[in-house]
Amino acid sequence: MERGKAEGKRRQNAEYSPRTDLALEIRESFEEDDVEIRGVVLERNPGITEGIEISRVVIRDERGAAAMGKPIGTYITIEAPKLKSAGEEYKEQLSKEIAGQLREMCRDLRQKRILVAGLGNRDATPDALGPMVVDQLFVTRHLIREFGKDFKEKHGLADVSAVAVGVMGQTGMESFEILKGIIRETKPELIIAVDALAARNVERMNATVQLTDTGINPGAGIGNNRKALNEESLGAPVIAIGVPTVVDAATIVSDSMERFLNAQGFSEEENQQFLFEIRESARSGETGGLFVTPKNIDEAVKQISIIISEALNMCFTE
Amino acid sequence: MERGKAEGKRRQNAEYSPRTDLALEIRESFEEDDVEIRGVVLERNPGITEGIEISRVVIRDERGAAAMGKPIGTYITIEAPKLKSAGEEYKEQLSKEIAGQLREMCRDLRQKRILVAGLGNRDATPDALGPMVVDQLFVTRHLIREFGKDFKEKHGLADVSAVAVGVMGQTGMESFEILKGIIRETKPELIIAVDALAARNVERMNATVQLTDTGINPGAGIGNNRKALNEESLGAPVIAIGVPTVVDAATIVSDSMERFLNAQGFSEEENQQFLFEIRESARSGETGGLFVTPKNIDEAVKQISIIISEALNMCFTE
Amino acid sequence: MERGKAEGKRRQNAEYSPRTDLALEIRESFEEDDVEIRGVVLERNPGITEGIEISRVVIRDERGAAAMGKPIGTYITIEAPKLKSAGEEYKEQLSKEIAGQLREMCRDLRQKRILVAGLGNRDATPDALGPMVVDQLFVTRHLIREFGKDFKEKHGLADVSAVAVGVMGQTGMESFEILKGIIRETKPELIIAVDALAARNVERMNATVQLTDTGINPGAGIGNNRKALNEESLGAPVIAIGVPTVVDAATIVSDSMERFLNAQGFSEEENQQFLFEIRESARSGETGGLFVTPKNIDEAVKQISIIISEALNMCFTE
Amino acid sequence: MERGKAEGKRRQNAEYSPRTDLALEIRESFEEDDVEIRGVVLERNPGITEGIEISRVVIRDERGAAAMGKPIGTYITIEAPKLKSAGEEYKEQLSKEIAGQLREMCRDLRQKRILVAGLGNRDATPDALGPMVVDQLFVTRHLIREFGKDFKEKHGLADVSAVAVGVMGQTGMESFEILKGIIRETKPELIIAVDALAARNVERMNATVQLTDTGINPGAGIGNNRKALNEESLGAPVIAIGVPTVVDAATIVSDSMERFLNAQGFSEEENQQFLFEIRESARSGETGGLFVTPKNIDEAVKQISIIISEALNMCFTE
Repeated sequence: MERGKAEGKRRQNAEYSPRTDLALEIRESFEEDDVEIRGVVLERNPGITEGIEISRVVIRDERGAAAMGKPIGTYITIEAPKLKSAGEEYKEQLSKEIAGQLREMCRDLRQKRILVAGLGNRDATPDALGPMVVDQLFVTRHLIREFGKDFKEKHGLADVSAVAVGVMGQTGMESFEILKGIIRETKPELIIAVDALAARNVERMNATVQLTDTGINPGAGIGNNRKALNEESLGAPVIAIGVPTVVDAATIVSDSMERFLNAQGFSEEENQQFLFEIRESARSGETGGLFVTPKNIDEAVKQISIIISEALNMCFTE
Repeated sequence: MERGKAEGKRRQNAEYSPRTDLALEIRESFEEDDVEIRGVVLERNPGITEGIEISRVVIRDERGAAAMGKPIGTYITIEAPKLKSAGEEYKEQLSKEIAGQLREMCRDLRQKRILVAGLGNRDATPDALGPMVVDQLFVTRHLIREFGKDFKEKHGLADVSAVAVGVMGQTGMESFEILKGIIRETKPELIIAVDALAARNVERMNATVQLTDTGINPGAGIGNNRKALNEESLGAPVIAIGVPTVVDAATIVSDSMERFLNAQGFSEEENQQFLFEIRESARSGETGGLFVTPKNIDEAVKQISIIISEALNMCFTE
Repeated sequence: MERGKAEGKRRQNAEYSPRTDLALEIRESFEEDDVEIRGVVLERNPGITEGIEISRVVIRDERGAAAMGKPIGTYITIEAPKLKSAGEEYKEQLSKEIAGQLREMCRDLRQKRILVAGLGNRDATPDALGPMVVDQLFVTRHLIREFGKDFKEKHGLADVSAVAVGVMGQTGMESFEILKGIIRETKPELIIAVDALAARNVERMNATVQLTDTGINPGAGIGNNRKALNEESLGAPVIAIGVPTVVDAATIVSDSMERFLNAQGFSEEENQQFLFEIRESARSGETGGLFVTPKNIDEAVKQISIIISEALNMCFTE
Repeated sequence: MERGKAEGKRRQNAEYSPRTDLALEIRESFEEDDVEIRGVVLERNPGITEGIEISRVVIRDERGAAAMGKPIGTYITIEAPKLKSAGEEYKEQLSKEIAGQLREMCRDLRQKRILVAGLGNRDATPDALGPMVVDQLFVTRHLIREFGKDFKEKHGLADVSAVAVGVMGQTGMESFEILKGIIRETKPELIIAVDALAARNVERMNATVQLTDTGINPGAGIGNNRKALNEESLGAPVIAIGVPTVVDAATIVSDSMERFLNAQGFSEEENQQFLFEIRESARSGETGGLFVTPKNIDEAVKQISIIISEALNMCFTE
């Protein structure tokens, strides 16, 4: 395929791209011959633990950012496909991998004053990840203020505060406004924002963790565009930890149809035309605003929230 | 279309029918010229309140039961399409309509000893309807046992007990086993089972109530086939109150594709062939075991649980 | 009794006063002949509804503030002793009385941008009042920002935001810090803070509402002294709504003993001496840090949270 | 002291005994010279872990049962006074001690079909222990029924089902009725009932576990006398696991006064007379129906529920 055509497709991809919050999936959606997109680097590494895969997408410049539709920065994806049927050991290893990647992303983590922000809706199970993680954290800021620096040093504690900010339908305020205010008042040096994401691939739901140093757009994956939470807007670096817990219903529909059409022997030209129309219709039609989630969503979110809170507690105390 | 072909299609319909728990939707899925299915009667009535529609499907005999894939009995569907944006008055009217239909289904309701069974999983928002309704009921059995019949008469109370039975992943037991045991011990004369259902039409999610005197198959709508809860199995009549809170993901996919194919100008023959394959693939593929739910599921389930519990409390005290 | 002695007793009272957050109870603890304390005015009025009593304590100057141990301002106490066994009508009347007093305390309530702050711990039932009220409010700020002033005018809505700030053990931050930050960012014109209080009289638990325009000291009633939330500290007027849901265990002990000793025929001198020691011991002993709560605390808090949230929703929309 | 007087006091003790569910505390309330009560044996042992004390009260015959006001059987008390400030290791040791005592009480635990019953009220934090333990158990009955005996053997699993039965105010039914019914239907060979208890000594709240093979009287500790849950009533052996999470308010009052009076130098005769009257008054007065609980009850109950569920999961899988 010549250059021109590939470009054309990438544009189409951008316009009708299935909704996903995972940089890895956006990268995967590019054509084979686009692998060398300047400004976007992808490395895949197996984790230290068998059955855990770690990928790193680095968006280096504005060109990469435009192609990816994501800000410049590093996106680590930790995939744990065996999580559903895993034993305690695998889960603990997963926590350790997450903690290891976090420490690498922010080397002197334990020296910083950290605010963990749990985004999302406590009352809607697939969106409850952030609040559930916050509930399980070992917060210390008040103890350090009461007992002093010696206490902090003696116990090797990070200075940690945490808040579940709620969602706009409950508070009438944006997550951004609440966080911005709290940050002005308490002046943390690092924000760690935890949120539920949307993936494209159903296999990744509740089995994948994305870490990024670029911050987060709350609700972006499910179509709620809110003000970004990042260093520029909040005044302190923001590491975002996200887990896809849902897939957009329109994405499921258009991907299922794409697979079906590919299997029917239509010409590529015909497929492209169909897909264009299918996506248009899926986006605007009755599946808009709906998301797909597995039956055991309560168990799945509970499990991954424990894994992430243990990873954070490890980073904060060890 | 000749008879034979219609029969053939109905069979195909049965085999690949989109999953729904609403008798009304199964009935709607039949071809135009099947309207006169013997053994299945459909009446549509506007409710007393504007904007509330009430339909009644009566399955009269085994032939109707076979065609519908549902037991003989009466299925009332109360549709409240304006519920999403409705004010308090509309909600109260909806409670009254539900109460009215319940009283008609069981005329001397207030004279009976009633056990309300909330089915489903308290921790997974779309499945929490049953437990949430139970939480809001005015239970009286223990008061009547303590203060006697005079107390009951004086206050005009029904004798009501209620239990949220949990789900098998939490208890290790089937809903049927728990209920059967409790019924043997407490001997209610009527069971009212409340459960979240699956619909085919996304518009009906959280805006439709089905009442039936045939009992219920817990989890049938989302593919968990458990032992039926009905008079035969439980030893007391069972009225089931269900609200579709999800749509099966495979259903969304195959319905979206059907609409798309119909719009593409393929021949009916071609469409049928495609649809057969699409459904096969949707059922067995990655969308199996997934369901679709709206973003505001927490608000939607809370609202409809209040409406149903108020309808029940009306029936029990007025 | 001469002046000097009364003064002395008042001092003793202040030092060993049973812990209560109700201005009315502090006022009641003064001796008969102190009724004319300058700077503190007490009026009792029956509410419009039978069985609801409304008292008003006004602390006019520093002298009154010192005697009462409370800031200058107005304290309305609404007592509903029949609440435990009340029907729907009484509860609705109670909501109306609360709404009426609130409107009087802040005359153009509906014109203001209001932030409701739910203080306390969602996970400890007696302390969950604030978060539970917030959960039931009709928040509008985001709607007004999206749909504009016309929308606000058309529907006659106040501009309401709401937040449950959590407790320090969960967040590592003081309620004050979180609120101060949010207020800086969202600039409300009025704060309404809702919190669980401690009473002295067990009869008042879950059956009394205190409104005050002086703000609040979170956790003061149960011995957690945090930074005050008031106009001076937060930059906007603060109306506090409090309900006693607990009694301090030391208070129960010393009050019970006082009643007992009074009945034993000891001389007043002896009683005073005993009581001094009893209170010392109760305060420092094993009852320190414990509180007393009724068995049905879950029902009681749920009920009063509904009543208060309905009062607020009335004020915001009517 | 002569025999007669001791007897008299014991009777008085029985009549006015402070409410406690701990056999150990009843035993401790006897006079020094009653240590040799026939039919009641007390042994104290340090646990394997430092800082954990294990006591065993065995009631051997009817005479002991009458003196103790408790049924014949074995009562193990595991005290962990350092729990409040303990690290992970101490908690894990506590789980192990509990598991060890359980295994001793029922030697072939893992071979039995077990039903764990969580008693108490999920919505009132001090009473939520039972439901919280049940939420954290690894239930297997449904898996074994689906995958067969080989699956059970291969994974070394016990056959475990679990249910939180709710309280009468929520269900209208007694715990006994619900359990009896479920047991008839599912035929477990052992019931493990988990419940919150009342202690006399505030130090024991949330830091003590009682195991007994005599079953349980739900709500006995806080004055709700319900039908006993034991082998006789339920048809299968019942091991009860209880943790005192509250102290009766009347107990706090009378114990505080007893300490005070003892310190005042009154004669024993006078004290006895006073105490008689104090207890009478505390029981019938305004403290009746109230209980005392610490401020951090949510943290304390959560912690002990994790410890107990881990002990049970150990017994069921190792």
